[in-house]
Amino acid sequence: MDSFACPLPPAGDAMVLLGHGGGGSLSQRLIDQLLVPAFGPADGVLHDAAVLPAEAGPLAFTTDSYVVRPLFFPGGDIGSLAVFGTVNDLAMVGASAIALSLSLILEEGLPMHLLQQVLASIRIAAQRCGVPVVTGDTKVVERGKGDGIYINTAGIGRVDHGMQIGPKAVRSGDAILVSGDLGRHGVAILAARQELGFRTELHSDLAPLQEPVRALLAADLELHCLRDLTRGGLASALHEISRGAGLGVLVRENAIPIAPEVDAACELLGLDPLAMANEGRFVLFLPAHQADRALAVLQRFQPSAASIGCVRGEAVLLETSLGLQRRLELGRGESLPRIC
Amino acid sequence: MDSFACPLPPAGDAMVLLGHGGGGSLSQRLIDQLLVPAFGPADGVLHDAAVLPAEAGPLAFTTDSYVVRPLFFPGGDIGSLAVFGTVNDLAMVGASAIALSLSLILEEGLPMHLLQQVLASIRIAAQRCGVPVVTGDTKVVERGKGDGIYINTAGIGRVDHGMQIGPKAVRSGDAILVSGDLGRHGVAILAARQELGFRTELHSDLAPLQEPVRALLAADLELHCLRDLTRGGLASALHEISRGAGLGVLVRENAIPIAPEVDAACELLGLDPLAMANEGRFVLFLPAHQADRALAVLQRFQPSAASIGCVRGEAVLLETSLGLQRRLELGRGESLPRIC
Repeated sequence: MDSFACPLPPAGDAMVLLGHGGGGSLSQRLIDQLLVPAFGPADGVLHDAAVLPAEAGPLAFTTDSYVVRPLFFPGGDIGSLAVFGTVNDLAMVGASAIALSLSLILEEGLPMHLLQQVLASIRIAAQRCGVPVVTGDTKVVERGKGDGIYINTAGIGRVDHGMQIGPKAVRSGDAILVSGDLGRHGVAILAARQELGFRTELHSDLAPLQEPVRALLAADLELHCLRDLTRGGLASALHEISRGAGLGVLVRENAIPIAPEVDAACELLGLDPLAMANEGRFVLFLPAHQADRALAVLQRFQPSAASIGCVRGEAVLLETSLGLQRRLELGRGESLPRIC
Repeated sequence: MDSFACPLPPAGDAMVLLGHGGGGSLSQRLIDQLLVPAFGPADGVLHDAAVLPAEAGPLAFTTDSYVVRPLFFPGGDIGSLAVFGTVNDLAMVGASAIALSLSLILEEGLPMHLLQQVLASIRIAAQRCGVPVVTGDTKVVERGKGDGIYINTAGIGRVDHGMQIGPKAVRSGDAILVSGDLGRHGVAILAARQELGFRTELHSDLAPLQEPVRALLAADLELHCLRDLTRGGLASALHEISRGAGLGVLVRENAIPIAPEVDAACELLGLDPLAMANEGRFVLFLPAHQADRALAVLQRFQPSAASIGCVRGEAVLLETSLGLQRRLELGRGESLPRIC
């Protein structure tokens, strides 16, 4: 569990009460004592919506709710996940986050110090990404109608490139790269739930992806498609992109980077590392002649980044280590609930 | 309970499963069969973030999570509430909604037809406001870790006026108007929970507020502050605005419009109608000499709109029907959990 120094004053309340979501004096105290100190505004005056200055270009817009269990895991917590996850979704269209919203669904009885810790983590993560939390909301549900904290973040991003990054831009012959080794987040969550049956020092790969994407843009590469590898892992991402592009892909099992600890854990549990969740990895499609340059950029951030295959045919295929080709399986998605 | 014709095909699944949130084939089916038909995009290709065209002026940004219980109530449901609530928050800075995000937290076991009904309601409400749902997310939590459906919507709005609408713009002497009679939403929810002890035909006031705000802007009125009267009702809004403005207010009990059924229900339950929730009402602060014109605009939408007081002194005061002045109470917020 990451520990964050908590810069916030004690809330004066030991736990979250239903009234903290009721819009009365308890709500006001929660806002005054925890939310305004963490996220501003400087004058402490909140309004129904934030007003952002005009932007010259197009904007990206995304949302995600986070229900990860447990709230704290090796390498992160629901707070940092809620910031990086949404910042990363913006990065996948080549956008830099300029504003986040933060909406909390708290369960009655949540210890206030856990809420403080999560808010501190959100603040630190947002600072690291250079993005302010500009608007928010808090609701409280009864005991047994939630699970501690659920968080929604929505994000607005600035798009300052002229490309249409997405599945439609993928072309036959494109190279496929991953930004680092796969599956660490899924295994770290299982370990934190003590569902592994053995101990591991493995941490989640949770990380902001703005910087590597900015570096790719700065290198003047023709980015066809980016997709962060969250729920469903690489397998889901390849299937979705293939479907959106109307083109097949072939990836080589030998080329896909998997840490030995992840491989071992998946083997033991009968899970497919290619379907394991990540929170700091993405897949990149671009013209094959730019693959080496792109890989060099990615390896500055993660030495394990790799070129794993290409776009061709119509099916989503995996070339196994024995040289056989088989369809890459897309799980039903039931094996790892609440991974993010 | 409002009934909405459901234009969506049957989902083929009887209820929501954990796997519908897992990022695999079940997630894909949910997206293909329910979400894309309801909200697009036209080509069915989804990406991590939506890209919106450039806007000339400043933008408004807001978020709310909705946890209302029950999911369906007289005059609306959690779906229409999630759209109008967020559109209304944007309207409160004088902005017109241009894009919504939609994030669902579903409880395992939720009947699929209820989800379809809520999505249909969201679609109809968004169409009524002329705003597209451009990006979204779905998570599923285990039975007993949610309550059917929680919804988050975030919204981006276009600001095309030059005013700084908010508590800081309030001036001593300003008139205070409400856009209609108060407390219907709170009473309708209590009735739907069968907590009233008697039957009522009362419907929630749930409604989009973009149109009356546009009409106020079109009438060239100097809008100092707008606030929609949700949790905590008029009492909370007046306290918050007073605090933000650093000024007191005086409102006259006799002038505040309350429907007889609302008054009777509050009397019976020992609740304060001024602290009851609304979802289609707002309070407006503007220069006193413009009050009559503003009231005429508001009454085109709700005949019960009224001028209820003015900004003066430092305290939040209520002049009772007997002519006495007392502090307007701000409840702790515990009496009406999960009203929105």
